[in-house]
Parts: sequence; C-alpha cells; structure tokens
Amino acid sequence: MIEARNLKGFRDQLPREALARDQVVQKLKSVFLSFGFAPIETPHLEYSEVLLPNEGDEVAKQLFRFRDQGDRDVMLRYDLTVPFARFAVQHRNDLGMPFKRFAVGSVFRGEAPQFGRYREFTQCDFDIVGSHSVVADAEIALVLARCYSAIGLSGVEIRINNRRLVNGIFEAFGIRQKFPEILRVIDKLDKIGEKAVVAELIRVADIKAPAAQAVLDFLGESRRLSNQELLAKLKLQPSNDNLSQGIAEIEGVLKALGEVDLAPAELRIDLSLARGLAYYTGVVFEVVHPKVPEVGSIGGGGRYDNLTKSFGKDELPGVGASVGLDRVIDTLEKLGLLGTTSTPARVLCAQVETTFTSKIIQMAEFLRAQGIRSEVYPEVAKLKKQLQYGDRKGHEYLIIVGSDEATKGVWAVKNLRDRTQTEAKSLEEIVALVKQSSPDILN
Amino acid sequence: MIEARNLKGFRDQLPREALARDQVVQKLKSVFLSFGFAPIETPHLEYSEVLLPNEGDEVAKQLFRFRDQGDRDVMLRYDLTVPFARFAVQHRNDLGMPFKRFAVGSVFRGEAPQFGRYREFTQCDFDIVGSHSVVADAEIALVLARCYSAIGLSGVEIRINNRRLVNGIFEAFGIRQKFPEILRVIDKLDKIGEKAVVAELIRVADIKAPAAQAVLDFLGESRRLSNQELLAKLKLQPSNDNLSQGIAEIEGVLKALGEVDLAPAELRIDLSLARGLAYYTGVVFEVVHPKVPEVGSIGGGGRYDNLTKSFGKDELPGVGASVGLDRVIDTLEKLGLLGTTSTPARVLCAQVETTFTSKIIQMAEFLRAQGIRSEVYPEVAKLKKQLQYGDRKGHEYLIIVGSDEATKGVWAVKNLRDRTQTEAKSLEEIVALVKQSSPDILN
Repeated sequence: MIEARNLKGFRDQLPREALARDQVVQKLKSVFLSFGFAPIETPHLEYSEVLLPNEGDEVAKQLFRFRDQGDRDVMLRYDLTVPFARFAVQHRNDLGMPFKRFAVGSVFRGEAPQFGRYREFTQCDFDIVGSHSVVADAEIALVLARCYSAIGLSGVEIRINNRRLVNGIFEAFGIRQKFPEILRVIDKLDKIGEKAVVAELIRVADIKAPAAQAVLDFLGESRRLSNQELLAKLKLQPSNDNLSQGIAEIEGVLKALGEVDLAPAELRIDLSLARGLAYYTGVVFEVVHPKVPEVGSIGGGGRYDNLTKSFGKDELPGVGASVGLDRVIDTLEKLGLLGTTSTPARVLCAQVETTFTSKIIQMAEFLRAQGIRSEVYPEVAKLKKQLQYGDRKGHEYLIIVGSDEATKGVWAVKNLRDRTQTEAKSLEEIVALVKQSSPDILN
Repeated sequence: MIEARNLKGFRDQLPREALARDQVVQKLKSVFLSFGFAPIETPHLEYSEVLLPNEGDEVAKQLFRFRDQGDRDVMLRYDLTVPFARFAVQHRNDLGMPFKRFAVGSVFRGEAPQFGRYREFTQCDFDIVGSHSVVADAEIALVLARCYSAIGLSGVEIRINNRRLVNGIFEAFGIRQKFPEILRVIDKLDKIGEKAVVAELIRVADIKAPAAQAVLDFLGESRRLSNQELLAKLKLQPSNDNLSQGIAEIEGVLKALGEVDLAPAELRIDLSLARGLAYYTGVVFEVVHPKVPEVGSIGGGGRYDNLTKSFGKDELPGVGASVGLDRVIDTLEKLGLLGTTSTPARVLCAQVETTFTSKIIQMAEFLRAQGIRSEVYPEVAKLKKQLQYGDRKGHEYLIIVGSDEATKGVWAVKNLRDRTQTEAKSLEEIVALVKQSSPDILN
C-alpha cells in the first residue's frame, strides 16, 4: 500500500485556489493579448548547457538536473527567461524582430521549503525583444499597470529606476568603480539597515564614509519627491554621460506615457530601487502593494541587453517583466478579494427521482446556453444530501423537480444564500431569476 | 558558445500554433466550467512510487525518473489520471464527494521520437469521481460532444461501448474466460485485420474458429445499426447478468440524454470499440473525425472503478475522458480551420515620428478599451519596415500619424488585407472602421 502524499516541497491546488488562479491568469493573458503580445511555449525540460546559470547565482544550487533515458544531461527550467533566450536565437528568422511574447508556466527550484515557498511555482512573463527603444520600456511599464488593475488590485505602486542613471549618480558623487557590487549592497538596505549598508559600502567599494552616506541619502530622498521634482534635482548635479543618458531614458518613458490614464503611484521614480539593477542593463521596475508590504514585490522586470550572449549571436536587446502569480494570490487573499466558492457553477440541479433525469439535463443545457454555468448532481439522492453538497461547494441556486413540481408544472428554485425559495413556471423564468443577482465569481 | 537547440524529442510552440492552442484550451475550459467541473492542479513531479505504472504497461519503459537533491526517487508525470487518484485520496475530506474536476497540463513520455509525437504533450482531462451512476456516464458523453462543437469541430463521431455488455456478449456466444486478453486482441482489428484477429483469438482464448468469427461478426455488425436497432437485437440474445446489466447501463446513458440536442453520430453504440476496454470497467468512449480518420482517436475515456486501489483506500469509482489536444490541433490544421496570423492584435499602430509617440500610445489604449487588440510598433522606424512587420505577423489594420495627418487632424487607417486606405477624423471613427470587419481570430 502506497501513501498518498506530495513530493517534499511541492503542493496541490484545490478548486477554490485553482479557480482564483485560473481567473487571474485569464485576465493577465487578456491584457497581454490586448497589447499584441503573442503566446509562445517552450518545454519544461532542456539540455543543461542551455539553461546553466552562472556559478555564483543563487539558483545554481537549486537545479533539478539529471540524465534522461538517452544519458543526456538535462534540467527542468528554473525560469522562463533563459529558455526564451534560446527560443529567440533559434527561431529568430521565423519570428521577425521586434518580437513581443508572453508565457505563463511552471518553473522549478529546489529551495529549502519554507512557508509560502514551493519548489514548483508559476511565472507570468512578457517581453519585447529586438528593440533598444524607450517606447518599449514604456510599454512594459504600461502593461504592468494594466495587469494589476485587470485583476482588481488597484492602488499598486510601480517603482521605476535605471541602472545608467544610478551609475551616473555614483559618478557624480565621485565613485567610479565596482558598480555591480555597490548595487548588490544597496539592495540589502531593507534587510540589514542603513548603518550596515554604509559599513559594507566602505569595505566593498573603498568609499569614504561621508560619500557613502551622501549617496544613500540622495537615493533615499527620491522616495519623497515627485517625478518632476526629482528630475529637476538630478539636472542640478554635475553632469556625466551616464547621468544625462539615464535622465533621457527615464524622461523618454514618462513622456511616452504622458497622455495615458495612470495614477502617480503607477509610475514612480525610486532611485533607491536596486533590486535587479546588477542584472539588468537599463530600466528596472518593481511592483508592491502598499497595503500588504509584507508580501514583498508582486512583480517587476527591466531591460537586459545581453540576453543571448551565451549563444554567441548578435546582441538581441530586450525589456520585459513578470507578474508574481503566487504573491498576487497571497495579496488578493490578504485583502479579502479571493473568491470563496469551490465550484465554477452558479446553479446546482438536483435529482430526486430518476423519472426526471433527462428533463433536468435538458434544463441545465438550456441554462448553459444562456451563459449560466449549471451543474447536474450526478446521481439520484436524498435532497438533503444535495443541499449540503451545494452549500459546501458554494452554488448560489438549487433547482428541484420532484413529483409535486412536475404535477404543478413548475421548478422550485432555492436561493442558497438567503434560503428563499421561488416557483418558476418556465426555464426563461429561472434564467431571469438567476441573472437578477450578480455572480459570486466571474464567468 | 552553446548551440541554441531543443532537447531531443521536445519542441517549441511558435505564436501561430500557440495562439491556436490557447484558443482551443480556452474554449474547452469554458465547456468544463459551464458544467461545474472545477480546475485542480497537481505538480509535474511526484514520488516514483505514487506514479509507478504496472510492469507490463507500455509507459513503464518511457519514464523520466531520477533522484532529486534530497536523493528522493522522483518521476515526471506521464498522465493526469494517476496524480489525480493520489489527489482524490489525499484531499477526499476537503473535496467532498461526488467531485467533478478538470485539468489541462503537460505530461512526459520518453517515446521514440516520430513524426507528430513528442516527449512532452498536453492532456485535457475531465472526470467525475465518487459516483457509480449512469447519469455521470451520460454527462461525460455530453461534455465530450460539447467540447468538439465549442472548438468548431462539428461532425465528430462519439462511439460508446461498455465492457460489461461485451463480456455479456462473449458469454452469450459460449466464451467464459480470458476477457481482458480477448479485448486486447480485438483492439488490434484495425491494425492486423480480421483474419489475424480470429487466429489470435483461437490461440489466446481457446475459442473455436466458428465462435471467434461469429463474435467478431456480431460486434462488427453493430456499426451498421442504429442504437435502437442494436439494443433490440441484443435483447434477443440468450440473457446473462453481464448482458442485461450492460444493456441497462447503455440504455441509462441514452435515456438520460434523450432530451438534449445531439446528432446521431455524437452518441453511437459501437460494440467493436475495444480501445481501453481492458483498462476501463464500464462505459468507454472514443472520438474520431470521419473526415480525417488518419489522425486517429481525438479523444476518449470511460469508467474506472478501481482508481485508488494502489492507495489501499475504499473504492472510489470514477468516469472521465480526455480531449487529445495535439490531435485536435492536427485535425483543425488538416481541415483548414487553424488561424494563420501570428499576432493576437488586429491593429498595428505605426510610429513614424517621435513627436507623436504619446498620442499613439493613447490611441492604442482607447482602441483596447473598446475591445480591439492593438499593438504599438515599439520604436520609430521607416513606414515600410512597419508595414512589412504587420503583413508578416498578420495584423488587419495599420494606423499612421505623421506630420501630414497631424496637420489635417486625421488618422490614416490602412486595411492590410485589401490595401485600401481611409482617413479617420476621430478615434471613434477608427473603432467603427475596425469593427465593421469581423476579426480573423476571436478576441
């Protein structure tokens, strides 16, 4: 006898969560498609050499790597970006550049299991490759904003920064080297605090204490300024190539989005945003929800201009972002916005006598044709049992036909929310009754 | 330098195919949801002992099995049924029975690569567990029929058979043993022909030649009879428990669906249908498209009443089916029903001068809000290049604003199908123009 259990670090999704995730993914896909991003799919399994991360990367210790039947060295994908780089190089001529894609899929990392972190999780990525333009940067920011409003998460903050800009600020403060290392240290600000960051900056980058503190102050202050105030302040700094280029790039994004409907928080320059700056080459984005900061980043991305380097092809520039599905679900849950039903059907059609089975199945088909999701209880059973089934799963209405109803030529429609019961004289009347109330979940 | 290539036996899906697949999956999901089937998800990776097939099964030679970081013996799932059995046992109390679920996901089999067969492919399964009722059998048949009409594959044949019924027929012909072996032989009918099947029946099951031929004739003849003719003929046979029970089960399905709109071909008894009969315990289904028989079965399923046997729990009966997504796509392609565009966007918004970028992005947002998928070309470029981009990807309209248009206060709308060009005086006019024509692909 075998124990029914999940592999360590993995989990199932039961209907309530799976329904919510499916709805969120549908809405995200609608946004991607509305902007002309095309779906693509790559396999879950690849040659290890294709995916292999750099030795230093955290993910290098978390790989599901093995030998297949043909003794090939293979690996489960740990993100959707590296397979996409392989894909873009391999199919470059078929795709035509520039190319906009999205992908939603499982990725695998053998992290130490901890609360809310699993070894298989879902990424929702969208990218534009083949263009250096700031218009592409701007579009990624706009798609991000539209994603969160589509799933009902209004009020998110989309923070934007630019690696070139930050490098330019370092230079303006007399710092001329070890930018990636400095960025990695600044990224720890929230974790280890300002004092420790200053100490580490001094140690890592040979910066003097006052300069380190001054840079940190400058970056941190940006959070309190509007985009326009901040840009004005940046233009007062002693100029250098990185600084002026960085300002131009950020201004390009803001200008491109100047005429669209975006809240100030949906596009906010934050110079202290360092996450990913060491990895990305230009703009970076990070999304947080101010009401549930404990969830952390619920999305982000940036510009990478060396995506296809390991395949030795001509440079293929790209900019993209990712919506963190698991954290989005966490956020919706914490905000009380997650559905509570574990059935997609609004209506449950009871079966109390075998005689009426074909009539009930016909009725359910009629309701479905009117856009009302309707489930037939799969066998004849006591009404009480079917009522409990509907209550437990979250159907809104129970429809009953027994001998009494058949004799009178009516359908009994029980509202499972307020426990009222109505007699409908026709199928059209049932449809009208159900459509009066708004559905608990979207169809 | 690393070569950009797929792992042997695996493939990518480019936008044209991925768009088509995504649409098919959406429509299948809509059908499942409309019947109240809930989505669930299980991991791609499981303990090997949980999934391990029987030694004799073909799939036993095709497993992606390895040891994970913790030296656990693990396996990529090779179907969605065995993980579901594990899931149903593990979460039985949370789910409540009966339970209707669907799942769409990748499965992995290390088959010898051949044309059109890959080592990762998609299954779309739906099941009702926890009920022995023929109403559940009937619902699975109805969902199957609705799936194919939803994806535009009208005219499919849904063949139905019943293991108990066929056993009863064997008994009526004096055959009393080795039913599973006999069913496996009959299943080879299309492959090896009637003569070889008769020879093998004699060898495998000690049947005399005349009896073997008589049974085959009887089963084969069912293809030429209507359901009612066939049932009448069956009732003339010398009765036995299996036969009368089998007839009752088939009649139960037909009766339950007696009032719904189904073509005769969408529910057709075929006693010679043996595929899966050795595996399933009651009803079996198979779907084929008569116009492209070379594709083979494009879906099927049946009743299994021993799903959870290996977990040693109380019997959990079930009935379900699967839509063969890859073969459905093949069929749509062969029938010329697959979309030809590789972009989801109907409209491409050109950028010929930087001055107008923000205005163009605003326009695209307006079109999207009106339900028209609209892509902004991601950088300022020569118009010719953008025109080629739209032609290549399959946009229907190209919208242009240059100095001329800006001066006149108009938008140039080029129809990329008939090459006509119109001047629109407002965004509303663009919307009206685009909505005049029906989209190449569904939104």
